[in-house]
Amino acid sequence: MSTPVGTTFPCVTRTPGAPRRAHNFNAGPAALPLSVFERIREELLDYRGTGMSVMELSHRSAEFEAINNAAEQNLRKLLAIPNDYGVIFVQGGGSLQFSMAPMNLALPGKPVDVLHTGAWTAKAISELKKGTLHRLAASTEGVKFTRVPREEEIDLAPDASYTYFCTNNTIEGTQYHALPESAAPLVADMSSDIASRPVDVSKFGLIFAGAQKNLGPSGVTLVIVHKDLAERADKNLPTILQYRTHIKEKSLYHTPPTFAVYILGLVTEWIASEGGLAGIQKRNEAKAKLLYDAIDASGGFFHCPVEKASRSLMNVVFRVGGTSAAHGDEALEKEFAKQAAAAGLVGTPGHRSVGGMRASLYNAVSKADVEVLTDFMKGFQRARG
Amino acid sequence: MSTPVGTTFPCVTRTPGAPRRAHNFNAGPAALPLSVFERIREELLDYRGTGMSVMELSHRSAEFEAINNAAEQNLRKLLAIPNDYGVIFVQGGGSLQFSMAPMNLALPGKPVDVLHTGAWTAKAISELKKGTLHRLAASTEGVKFTRVPREEEIDLAPDASYTYFCTNNTIEGTQYHALPESAAPLVADMSSDIASRPVDVSKFGLIFAGAQKNLGPSGVTLVIVHKDLAERADKNLPTILQYRTHIKEKSLYHTPPTFAVYILGLVTEWIASEGGLAGIQKRNEAKAKLLYDAIDASGGFFHCPVEKASRSLMNVVFRVGGTSAAHGDEALEKEFAKQAAAAGLVGTPGHRSVGGMRASLYNAVSKADVEVLTDFMKGFQRARG
Repeated sequence: MSTPVGTTFPCVTRTPGAPRRAHNFNAGPAALPLSVFERIREELLDYRGTGMSVMELSHRSAEFEAINNAAEQNLRKLLAIPNDYGVIFVQGGGSLQFSMAPMNLALPGKPVDVLHTGAWTAKAISELKKGTLHRLAASTEGVKFTRVPREEEIDLAPDASYTYFCTNNTIEGTQYHALPESAAPLVADMSSDIASRPVDVSKFGLIFAGAQKNLGPSGVTLVIVHKDLAERADKNLPTILQYRTHIKEKSLYHTPPTFAVYILGLVTEWIASEGGLAGIQKRNEAKAKLLYDAIDASGGFFHCPVEKASRSLMNVVFRVGGTSAAHGDEALEKEFAKQAAAAGLVGTPGHRSVGGMRASLYNAVSKADVEVLTDFMKGFQRARG
Repeated sequence: MSTPVGTTFPCVTRTPGAPRRAHNFNAGPAALPLSVFERIREELLDYRGTGMSVMELSHRSAEFEAINNAAEQNLRKLLAIPNDYGVIFVQGGGSLQFSMAPMNLALPGKPVDVLHTGAWTAKAISELKKGTLHRLAASTEGVKFTRVPREEEIDLAPDASYTYFCTNNTIEGTQYHALPESAAPLVADMSSDIASRPVDVSKFGLIFAGAQKNLGPSGVTLVIVHKDLAERADKNLPTILQYRTHIKEKSLYHTPPTFAVYILGLVTEWIASEGGLAGIQKRNEAKAKLLYDAIDASGGFFHCPVEKASRSLMNVVFRVGGTSAAHGDEALEKEFAKQAAAAGLVGTPGHRSVGGMRASLYNAVSKADVEVLTDFMKGFQRARG
């Protein structure tokens, strides 16, 4: 019997028909909150009575301007961003910021001081090498990037344009738990721990972060920059590569990635509903503790190469088996990843450049997800006697 | 009575509960096909059994690589792109390309020839003025940009780095219906008519296009560039601003706007299902004819300021009332926009810089949408005697 159009017919409630959701430990793009997806789905064909999807709205429409403003205001509130900072959405990810920051902020004859902590600062240094005066104010390469630099190891220039660092290193699994002291403005790549804990924005000159870890989908990059610093830039730079352009135009200088900004806005609402950054921090600390404790209690079967004081709450790297802290048993690690994937645990292999395992515990990963992981780890170890 | 979880309860079929969809004539971001949204919605929480949304997939995953490759291959097939061209997805829109094209392709001492046809080429010229040798090979400013230049008006330099033009001018409502002849490589801003009709890519050195008119959401930019031309760039340019980087890394040099690339891929599938570019062209010609005929048959109540040979199939600009071809009755135009919006016709006001009306008829706008518009126009005129 066919169902006549317009009549009611039986359909199931969400639970039985609910989509299977993976335990997603991807390093980015990464897990986003289910409630955000439900909202996106609900509004996808008709955003609040407009008859259009958000991605079909003009970026000059009142509806999109409201979305754009809400995203900015939510961030200002969550991160307690002072009014003398611009909060802008740009494209190009952290990789464009590696060039845009020095283009805009490096002063002639005044070096950029860099704290080198691994693969992501190495990328920033590669771009500095193309003509920006810079120096290594610290590097933990000598200890294989297993920690961030200690305060006494940092040797800053007296006349630096700014001090550059990466607050959380996704590949090495390290994170700063106190800010480096610097007279020059701090410029931070905060892509992988933005909005994961409270931060004193007033200590920074510039913060940038690709959204795709804690704030939304890839394709939109948050920049928080002190307005005075944004005025350093030569006006002869490409208009789109000047921070001042986007501050002045409220991120609407050109067509922004509208749908990504919309989702970022929804994610900031979700963070607020979780108790803001203080609530999120508590949640993130509990998740990381669960996993580090499981690693440390495994009697060496699992081991984390990172010094405890530098361990990241966002990206937990560990090795499986093996004979030294720096190495694992690669065959066993491959087996771990394979069995984890079969159990619905996604993204456990470490970055291809370092091997081992990695579980990224960004904001949207739940404690329940981490419990499934630690249970899996215990079972995996038990099966090997 | 509450409904127990897991039992069935009555709900309505799609038709009565279907979301209201506007007749969307926005200039970009613009209408996208309903079938694409239905697919997005279906896969939003669980992309093909992965248990993740596409925006939660790692850009290094097999699933996303397949999405990325399919988007590229679909475009190669639709546009018949020769193998010696790179097809890459970048961020920053046309506005970044205004700088990136000269950075990569301008040769020392050899000017960029520009065909100036309005607001978008003006923006490109502004960026060239920041240090790239260039000259106006043609300009239709003298006729208020009401047409594109005629072949005999184009005065090319014998040694140009390349010849730059904009194939379709969204604000002025003009479009090239034959390619300019040029010994130097043609570099085109094709943002607003890409994939709207067949194109001989081999006549171009470089084509760029923001996706947000005919190909998908904003936040992803298609660049088609001859691989030899991409080798002109100084390797000291920021890595991310070199076309060769993205060709070499197959658009995965850094985290791409994954969800936007996915949607672009879905839109290319939809174009293929509509008969490819030949089918789409036929559809677009029929839509534009309907609207231009309605304007021309209105006895001057509506009038299009654009010379017939240069009229755009994508953006139909027209005035309402008024005493000369260049002007309309602004009060009447305001009333037109207001009543149109009330009737579910979105995006009819012209660009704020020129006024009047504009209806953008990108690929996803249907003939039925245009019929609703022309019916509305007839009624609007009738009501005014």
